[in-house]
Amino acid sequence: MTTVTPKILPSTPSATNPPLLIGDLLESGVRMAGDNQIVYRDLGRHDYRRFRERVHQLAHLLTAQGVRAGDVVAVLDWDSHRYLEAFFAIPMLGAVLHTVNVRLSPEQIHYTMEHAEDDFVLVHQDFVPLLEGLHERLPRIRGYLLCQEEAAEVDSALPLVGEYESLLADQSRHYDFPTFDENAVATLFYTTGTTGNPKGVYFTHRQLVLHTLTEASTLQAPGVELLNRDKVYMPITPMFHVHAWGVPYTATLLGATQVYPGRYEPEMLVRLLVDERVDFSHCVPTLLGMVLNAEPIASGRVDLAGWKLLIGGSPLTQALARRAHELGIDTRSAYGMSETCPLLTADVLPRDIAEADFETQLPWRCKAGLPIPLVQLQVVDESGTPLPNDGESVGEVRVRAPWLTQAYYKETTRSEELWRDGWLHTGDVATLDERGFLQIRDRIKDVIKTGGEWVSSLELENLIAQCPGVAEVAVIGVPDEQWGERPAALVVPKDLNAPPASDEVLAFLKRFVSEGRINRWALPSSIRFVDEIPKTSVGKLDKKRIRQEV
Amino acid sequence: MTTVTPKILPSTPSATNPPLLIGDLLESGVRMAGDNQIVYRDLGRHDYRRFRERVHQLAHLLTAQGVRAGDVVAVLDWDSHRYLEAFFAIPMLGAVLHTVNVRLSPEQIHYTMEHAEDDFVLVHQDFVPLLEGLHERLPRIRGYLLCQEEAAEVDSALPLVGEYESLLADQSRHYDFPTFDENAVATLFYTTGTTGNPKGVYFTHRQLVLHTLTEASTLQAPGVELLNRDKVYMPITPMFHVHAWGVPYTATLLGATQVYPGRYEPEMLVRLLVDERVDFSHCVPTLLGMVLNAEPIASGRVDLAGWKLLIGGSPLTQALARRAHELGIDTRSAYGMSETCPLLTADVLPRDIAEADFETQLPWRCKAGLPIPLVQLQVVDESGTPLPNDGESVGEVRVRAPWLTQAYYKETTRSEELWRDGWLHTGDVATLDERGFLQIRDRIKDVIKTGGEWVSSLELENLIAQCPGVAEVAVIGVPDEQWGERPAALVVPKDLNAPPASDEVLAFLKRFVSEGRINRWALPSSIRFVDEIPKTSVGKLDKKRIRQEV
Repeated sequence: MTTVTPKILPSTPSATNPPLLIGDLLESGVRMAGDNQIVYRDLGRHDYRRFRERVHQLAHLLTAQGVRAGDVVAVLDWDSHRYLEAFFAIPMLGAVLHTVNVRLSPEQIHYTMEHAEDDFVLVHQDFVPLLEGLHERLPRIRGYLLCQEEAAEVDSALPLVGEYESLLADQSRHYDFPTFDENAVATLFYTTGTTGNPKGVYFTHRQLVLHTLTEASTLQAPGVELLNRDKVYMPITPMFHVHAWGVPYTATLLGATQVYPGRYEPEMLVRLLVDERVDFSHCVPTLLGMVLNAEPIASGRVDLAGWKLLIGGSPLTQALARRAHELGIDTRSAYGMSETCPLLTADVLPRDIAEADFETQLPWRCKAGLPIPLVQLQVVDESGTPLPNDGESVGEVRVRAPWLTQAYYKETTRSEELWRDGWLHTGDVATLDERGFLQIRDRIKDVIKTGGEWVSSLELENLIAQCPGVAEVAVIGVPDEQWGERPAALVVPKDLNAPPASDEVLAFLKRFVSEGRINRWALPSSIRFVDEIPKTSVGKLDKKRIRQEV
Repeated sequence: MTTVTPKILPSTPSATNPPLLIGDLLESGVRMAGDNQIVYRDLGRHDYRRFRERVHQLAHLLTAQGVRAGDVVAVLDWDSHRYLEAFFAIPMLGAVLHTVNVRLSPEQIHYTMEHAEDDFVLVHQDFVPLLEGLHERLPRIRGYLLCQEEAAEVDSALPLVGEYESLLADQSRHYDFPTFDENAVATLFYTTGTTGNPKGVYFTHRQLVLHTLTEASTLQAPGVELLNRDKVYMPITPMFHVHAWGVPYTATLLGATQVYPGRYEPEMLVRLLVDERVDFSHCVPTLLGMVLNAEPIASGRVDLAGWKLLIGGSPLTQALARRAHELGIDTRSAYGMSETCPLLTADVLPRDIAEADFETQLPWRCKAGLPIPLVQLQVVDESGTPLPNDGESVGEVRVRAPWLTQAYYKETTRSEELWRDGWLHTGDVATLDERGFLQIRDRIKDVIKTGGEWVSSLELENLIAQCPGVAEVAVIGVPDEQWGERPAALVVPKDLNAPPASDEVLAFLKRFVSEGRINRWALPSSIRFVDEIPKTSVGKLDKKRIRQEV
């Protein structure tokens, strides 16, 4: 990195060179599509103009409750119009939005709320009992605002200041929002690793605006065309999880119709997909599987043809993509993580592949895709040397972009592990092919080292998942005296009463050995049938717990 | 504007929070579409990978010639692949690209090159005689790099350091570009007003990256769909003019095929439009008229159906949009100016209008459109109060956005006129309608004040242009003792030998009076027939010279 002295002319920051602030995204949406709707389940809807008024009203409400710039405001809610309003009103005040992961254990939730130094809380009625058990150990919190589907008296030990809708109704519809430094923190949330306490990641106004602009351009790319003003969007990634991949911000910038499904109940999801004619969603593979298994879909009673999905969190398997395709559902992959805001890559298919038949596209749709604009991405060996784009050389993914968490919140040691040599280290191992497509092979920690060779637990899982009679599978490395580690598989059979025999699964896998797709030493030493596989709060295989249970 | 104290956590700028630099745009294009082409007239083509190599080679060439960060490098060239390379290589070195307006007079060009403090020059052979006459009065310039279509000896008094292509060929194809502050100035150029010397406007790396991302999202919007990876783009706005509206940067970000036509000769333009299957261009109305008048188009020998154009610089008239539509050519408007990078608004048609027939769309296509994301735009009265969105209240347009020139270069007084009360004042008068569409009515200086009433010279010109026998028209205000000012029209007849009578034109206009479209006092007091109307270097009516001649 050379040092140079370019020409810099003075400017007055906030006047001639305004900061990048989240409020600008909302203004854009209202201008582009004031009549487009924000829908909340089957309970209500309003247009973008009213959405903006409600954001202003929420800002007044919070100000009246003593919330000030620099405060941290926690939200525990299902995906809702309220949550979307909080996405804007809280940061627009200069306060920090802490999106609490409600799937964590009560003790973990307590840890995150204490660590984040939450000052005020928006809490859905469903989580009131949870917070009743924690609030005495969260003395910093000044008040709790209750979110309900219908206003009703709640008898609670929590110091509730009132109910969201009824307090909102009294507020003025115009708030004179302040302007401030674009490097102010806008959002904060926690990610759970395989060890230790949850880690806080945080993003500034500048970072979220840049992520939004780039995501907007990418989701409108040819052959992608997932999101624009005329599309209907419904997330199936919780809003507490990396702000639903930042897509609510992008949908707002573009003025798209937005549908929020509340709690993820398959029946409600399917009803909204059909009734609201949802064009675009995003989720982890597990959730897509859950929707496809819902009775009305599986039975063919309901047609979801034309629905388009961006899949992330874990790699999309060819089996799942094919099953979706048979129902007329378009799936493609993206890649990112909590630490990265999250979008790093997306499947913008090259023109020749976009024009090819589905079977040709399939492997491409299951790769993580191309780095999006402004992302620098490398796959490097252990010395930090970039590996060739040959689709074979496996190394760790490291990235730079203007929207990465700049540290783990108040964690010096773990931040130094994340950021090394000026790069954020993802902990994922991957290949890059001749066309620059990234393919995630595994988590570094999940790769199995057997007899000096690397085996991807993920690839093995994908192959076993194709075996008849297998519903779900997890592969981990177990210690082995002779080989160091050996692969072991946990399998959930489709029919719990009639699981396939281990030998059948092995025989199925041996075909891939003779086809040269995997090596002999990748065959698992043990295959165990179980009723269920432990998952993390965001639906990924929880390999830490799996290892403990094996 | 309230002062608040948000939470700002420390970061290490260039590592965890990288600056926005123009080089990132080039990387994005190469990743998205390495095989897509950059075409130069009928003389050559290469793909994006080679484009990147050539940018690196140009950086080596310039470095070898002593160009350093902070230097100013001037370019005098026709629209070319070379110019595109200069768009990247010069700013990526931390130097400033000065795009010289080659249509100015030699004395004005001398003024701008001296005022910009140019250190090094890229000069097309066609402009060597011009610079021979100036270079002794530009002692700061260290060298001139010759641009030619075919390498040939040039006998010149200029201290030429060599020829672009032959020097490029010797350079390494990888340059280790520096990283630096995103507020470094990247580009500088001059705009001519109606009075005084040309004024310098300048844009930073940050501003150009933000303008590019927003332009990319806007040009891909539904119903717009002008530019993406799979489109073929050819500018018909000179690259020296507000970096061809920034579109070469946007086309590069997206990986679109780019066609550069050299000097604007109608025959070459038409040939490229057809042979290269150009999808998208942008230009001022005058240039579109010139293309439509070109023999192969006017005679119907060549079919341009499907070609899409963004029109700016001056308002698109309904007559021109209709004429284009009859040839299957799609036109819509955008609005901006040299001071604004330039994009401020674009015709993103509301869904119902986008789905309506052409006649319904026509008035909308001729309005300037909606402010694009991150732009704050107001139409205000003389006290600075925003006027209602009623389509009738006329006031000055003032704007804020993260990509406006922060001053006129080295011009305190004129900068203070431009930036007042924290807003950039455009000098345009306009209305905003109920849907938020901006419609430019006139330049403040061109509005005619007659008997206390305002008459838009622009509206009057549009009506007179519809009169049979009228090819071109300009309307100005002339002093009048009784009324203060009265409108006067200069008309170029279609047939110079048989101009219509003044009375015919007046009778034609009176119909609009009886229809209530204009007021009686808007009827011009004098109508004069001329062979030609003076225009500025970018093809707009030059009202300053017209006033002198009337």
